[in-house]
Amino acid sequence: MPRFRDLLELATWTFRPGPRDSITDVEGVRVGHVTLYEGSGPLVPGRGPVRTGVTVVVPHGGNTYREKVPAAATVFNGFTKAVGLVQVEELGVLETPVALTNTLNVGLVADGLVEYSIRVAPEIGVTAPTVNPVVLECNDGYLNDIQGRHVKQHHVLEAIQRAGEGFEEGSVGAGTGTVAFGFKGGIGTSSRVVETSMGRYVVGVLVQTNFGRAEDLLIGGIPVGALLKRSNPVSTGGGGSVNVVIATNAPLTSRQLRRLGRRAQVGLARVGGYAYHGSGEVALAFSTAYRVTYGSTTRVEVLPEVELNSLFKAVAEAVEEAVLNSMFAARTVEGRDGRVVHQIPVEEVLEILREYGSGWATFK
Amino acid sequence: MPRFRDLLELATWTFRPGPRDSITDVEGVRVGHVTLYEGSGPLVPGRGPVRTGVTVVVPHGGNTYREKVPAAATVFNGFTKAVGLVQVEELGVLETPVALTNTLNVGLVADGLVEYSIRVAPEIGVTAPTVNPVVLECNDGYLNDIQGRHVKQHHVLEAIQRAGEGFEEGSVGAGTGTVAFGFKGGIGTSSRVVETSMGRYVVGVLVQTNFGRAEDLLIGGIPVGALLKRSNPVSTGGGGSVNVVIATNAPLTSRQLRRLGRRAQVGLARVGGYAYHGSGEVALAFSTAYRVTYGSTTRVEVLPEVELNSLFKAVAEAVEEAVLNSMFAARTVEGRDGRVVHQIPVEEVLEILREYGSGWATFK
Amino acid sequence: MPRFRDLLELATWTFRPGPRDSITDVEGVRVGHVTLYEGSGPLVPGRGPVRTGVTVVVPHGGNTYREKVPAAATVFNGFTKAVGLVQVEELGVLETPVALTNTLNVGLVADGLVEYSIRVAPEIGVTAPTVNPVVLECNDGYLNDIQGRHVKQHHVLEAIQRAGEGFEEGSVGAGTGTVAFGFKGGIGTSSRVVETSMGRYVVGVLVQTNFGRAEDLLIGGIPVGALLKRSNPVSTGGGGSVNVVIATNAPLTSRQLRRLGRRAQVGLARVGGYAYHGSGEVALAFSTAYRVTYGSTTRVEVLPEVELNSLFKAVAEAVEEAVLNSMFAARTVEGRDGRVVHQIPVEEVLEILREYGSGWATFK
Amino acid sequence: MPRFRDLLELATWTFRPGPRDSITDVEGVRVGHVTLYEGSGPLVPGRGPVRTGVTVVVPHGGNTYREKVPAAATVFNGFTKAVGLVQVEELGVLETPVALTNTLNVGLVADGLVEYSIRVAPEIGVTAPTVNPVVLECNDGYLNDIQGRHVKQHHVLEAIQRAGEGFEEGSVGAGTGTVAFGFKGGIGTSSRVVETSMGRYVVGVLVQTNFGRAEDLLIGGIPVGALLKRSNPVSTGGGGSVNVVIATNAPLTSRQLRRLGRRAQVGLARVGGYAYHGSGEVALAFSTAYRVTYGSTTRVEVLPEVELNSLFKAVAEAVEEAVLNSMFAARTVEGRDGRVVHQIPVEEVLEILREYGSGWATFK
Repeated sequence: MPRFRDLLELATWTFRPGPRDSITDVEGVRVGHVTLYEGSGPLVPGRGPVRTGVTVVVPHGGNTYREKVPAAATVFNGFTKAVGLVQVEELGVLETPVALTNTLNVGLVADGLVEYSIRVAPEIGVTAPTVNPVVLECNDGYLNDIQGRHVKQHHVLEAIQRAGEGFEEGSVGAGTGTVAFGFKGGIGTSSRVVETSMGRYVVGVLVQTNFGRAEDLLIGGIPVGALLKRSNPVSTGGGGSVNVVIATNAPLTSRQLRRLGRRAQVGLARVGGYAYHGSGEVALAFSTAYRVTYGSTTRVEVLPEVELNSLFKAVAEAVEEAVLNSMFAARTVEGRDGRVVHQIPVEEVLEILREYGSGWATFK
Repeated sequence: MPRFRDLLELATWTFRPGPRDSITDVEGVRVGHVTLYEGSGPLVPGRGPVRTGVTVVVPHGGNTYREKVPAAATVFNGFTKAVGLVQVEELGVLETPVALTNTLNVGLVADGLVEYSIRVAPEIGVTAPTVNPVVLECNDGYLNDIQGRHVKQHHVLEAIQRAGEGFEEGSVGAGTGTVAFGFKGGIGTSSRVVETSMGRYVVGVLVQTNFGRAEDLLIGGIPVGALLKRSNPVSTGGGGSVNVVIATNAPLTSRQLRRLGRRAQVGLARVGGYAYHGSGEVALAFSTAYRVTYGSTTRVEVLPEVELNSLFKAVAEAVEEAVLNSMFAARTVEGRDGRVVHQIPVEEVLEILREYGSGWATFK
Repeated sequence: MPRFRDLLELATWTFRPGPRDSITDVEGVRVGHVTLYEGSGPLVPGRGPVRTGVTVVVPHGGNTYREKVPAAATVFNGFTKAVGLVQVEELGVLETPVALTNTLNVGLVADGLVEYSIRVAPEIGVTAPTVNPVVLECNDGYLNDIQGRHVKQHHVLEAIQRAGEGFEEGSVGAGTGTVAFGFKGGIGTSSRVVETSMGRYVVGVLVQTNFGRAEDLLIGGIPVGALLKRSNPVSTGGGGSVNVVIATNAPLTSRQLRRLGRRAQVGLARVGGYAYHGSGEVALAFSTAYRVTYGSTTRVEVLPEVELNSLFKAVAEAVEEAVLNSMFAARTVEGRDGRVVHQIPVEEVLEILREYGSGWATFK
Repeated sequence: MPRFRDLLELATWTFRPGPRDSITDVEGVRVGHVTLYEGSGPLVPGRGPVRTGVTVVVPHGGNTYREKVPAAATVFNGFTKAVGLVQVEELGVLETPVALTNTLNVGLVADGLVEYSIRVAPEIGVTAPTVNPVVLECNDGYLNDIQGRHVKQHHVLEAIQRAGEGFEEGSVGAGTGTVAFGFKGGIGTSSRVVETSMGRYVVGVLVQTNFGRAEDLLIGGIPVGALLKRSNPVSTGGGGSVNVVIATNAPLTSRQLRRLGRRAQVGLARVGGYAYHGSGEVALAFSTAYRVTYGSTTRVEVLPEVELNSLFKAVAEAVEEAVLNSMFAARTVEGRDGRVVHQIPVEEVLEILREYGSGWATFK
């Protein structure tokens, strides 16, 4: 299945992507999914049908607890049960993989990250401080038996074990049951390569899309959602949420990463996001450029503030593309109560884009 | 000169504007300008040329100090010298008109608001608490002798005195010397009417635009900035700033107004904003639905949270339109060192929009 | 066992307590514990010894999910894995009981609150939005096998079921394994009655104490910790954390509750707190004066800001007393690896207080 | 006149002060005052009597605009008109001296800092970005004709010019008209020397005290305010404000400086502060360990987080001592309408302290 970029590039995209056009273009970053898809028919709360999962972003190949990375979380709309953001804000570091899952599952998934951390760092809570799991979430209850909290602790361990540089997009992992702009949402990724005075850096993003109203969808600024005639999107009222994980190998402080994370919102607005009341919108940004070890001095050579401009634009571009990737890759899913959320009709979308965008977007 | 809406309406705009399509559609709100435009030729720091001014938004016809309005300030990019935001955040009220001016003038303009407040409420600092002036700012130093701080305290008093329901847009007041997307920016306004379960409300916005890079400008999603061929925009590197004042008669708490203010960013992103490092981006939102008097109980009947969805979208739409209004209304200005910032080439813009947007945008 | 107030009252305490001198003096508020105390001897990570538990504060007798209460969370030191604070900040409401537990158990305890909420509001995630569990935590790993996460979901349900107006202080529930100022900490509570222009209100607090260095302990300003000679406190380096839950029946907005919550820090400083790096310090404040229902208008008559002065002082006093109550009520506990944390030597403390405080503190 | 430390040392003070026990023990830091004291008799608003001034803290001997220092501002109670904090939060740097003055004068004083900055860095707003003046304030209107805004821009320049390592405490500069705990407040300073794994560092603080109720004053924990019998404090209802400037040569990031600044509140609580509604309480912390230059890479070797414990305690101690210094040094002042605010009765205070504190405080 072609990714969005295989079909066209938007006129506003000025940076080229990394080799995989993926968050894993940031060296060391890996992503893993566990997808849970079972049963069908009427919702039996606590039993199914199951359309959910967990996705993890692992910041580097080492021991994340012992070698923490600088990080920041930004909350644009705090209607979210995200876990771990308070400590990230205070200490400016990430010390576990970032997990994404469904809203009611954050407790068990946080517990899974604790279990993982203890296994790789048995000193936790014994001779060393405790650990701060970071979990982001979306409400996938339109398709999924969300009350069932079907993601168990061991699924988190499995997702981390499976994490690699190549990974699927769309209706997988934490994106199995999500809905974006009335069509099937899911996991998407993208990256950008940026030149600065200190060298070349990569910005990679991963999104979990479960937001937007059908009529609001914009692609390359064209109101595709409003122009589609032959499709049948579902209506979720704009609730849902969207989460953004940003990785970079640029040497940034947590304060600068917070600035970076805020620009995710530009990308979300470009595809038609309004951050509706019910849509929790969080960005978690981290840098792999240096590591922070408990009790040790950290030596940093920080990027000048003005060089952030390119990184800001790169984040916006990559988020926009990642959202589109999440939708283009997501296959149609039937969930609870026979509800069907269709894949976005790619062919009709392309027709619309060609009709209006020819002359400025780059078609392939 | 036609306003943007007289030429076309974007497909994403779903709410109708108020009668004036202006922040003054919110009953009681008035706007006043003092424009300072003197001299020409080489910059003589402290002397001129002068291309600046002050714009005030007066929240209601009463005594703002004695009858405060609920308010919130949101900072998307804090590279700004805005004054008064700390107290607005703590106490959730606005007790002066909001003044907009140039960056280095915030001290004198804040002092002007203090002078105004003392005149209308002589008890300030004598038998009553002090007063918290609110000032937002943009760096208009590309055209203006900003070191000169040419806006004096009495100009603030004059702007308040002149405040009315009808007011000019474009290169006036605090927009006299600003630059937006390489063309002349300035003051713009717009409004939206929204139906909710508690009744019909108006959302009005006023913007001071001094942000964006020429190549980034989007109108209705079309990359107009990149497509323009016959114009010569200037380059300010994306610095500058943009400020948004939001008024509504919907009964909201300061917490809800903060949520409202954040959605200004959606409108800014839609016209091509990236919140570059040097662009301070602040929104100040207030409600006229009730007033807060020192030492007295406040009775409020608050809009349900879920009803904010329409208001959020209305803010985004109105901000997008207000930015376009600020540019379409702004005439070409020559400033310091012979620098010329041109009005956006309206005819060429319309050609581009008709070429690509016909079929979905509504042309008139 | 006498409570602190049975022995003496500090000179700085100007408000009288409610009838129980407890957070449950705020009508409708109930507290429940589950205490887990098993095994002894060397730590076997994941097995024991177990010295932990869970404490819940239930805001009112109704359905907390359907009838939410206004609330705010304040973070003084964010070295904490507290769950649920992001949404409390955004929406200004609490919709579950507040649970307190050990650091590594927050995931399972949050999951327990989800389970409880689903049982009382089966519409969650089916026809209604999801639910935001709020969990605060302390690291009780000095005594407890914290890796074991011995608090299971059903313990949360049991604690809620047991919740009542009378409850134990000291080494119980979430205070079973905590250490305060080198002595046994735990759960403490206190309340104050305050007169305002709008009527008489109660402020109640509950603390989970696991903070402070032995040499820092102050009682009534007297450096008791430094003056004690016949005791053997343990050293935890000042890490640990302290959490404060504040309830009031005063009609406050979430913004005002945030202001209230910040004053918890005054009480903590008065007993010798410095908010050391490793000590997460969070206050969660809620009001029972009105309830917030999804989709409905909220009518509020809000206390004038200046009336908060009494409430601020009441919070500081009640927090100080609650910390002392938590310590005076806590019995000596032996935990992992034969570690013993002693009850504060009450008799010696009283000798010191009488020597220095006679003439200003009120002894009984 | 003896400083507090010449009379006694509190039992809770564990770190020794620097050679001057002053913020200027941090190498390069200088302080300057301009004191305005004119007229007497009934208040004629705008005319006098004048009891006010300005105090500046200059971070280093170089050009502060061109060589910025890492900084953070923390707001404990935001009832304050402080200027410049938004940009400090966003960019993490201080680029002017910090000025302290009266509430209604912040505009003119900010303008004075702009004037100063332009003189030393004429590129501001011409070829370089603008400048962010930082001003903190107290309401000195109990004694002073605060409507008069008697501090003019040139006074700021004079204060900076006069800045040195030795400077007066008490009723001088921005402390000329302030009231603390019913007695004369003013400017106070103190410092502490701290050993860490990376070396020895100094923490210095300067306070402007205008807060507290007479009955609340604590010295070494002893309720001196309540025990004083032969004095006649005035009542200002707990309004007023207190500002804290913290300087250190420890290598900290702005995030760490924010953590440091929050601990000022511990010191304020120890002398009887409750952060009453009307008392704006702000701390501005900066480090002189490295400098930040626009457009250049910053190389930092950051102190490990756990080493902050000593710095946190040092801040609390130094703030407590600085408040006492501000009061002990402040002479009796008669102001508007014949109002007299007396110096705290030092002899009676010492009697009380000796009666209760002998045996633990160290008298000299």
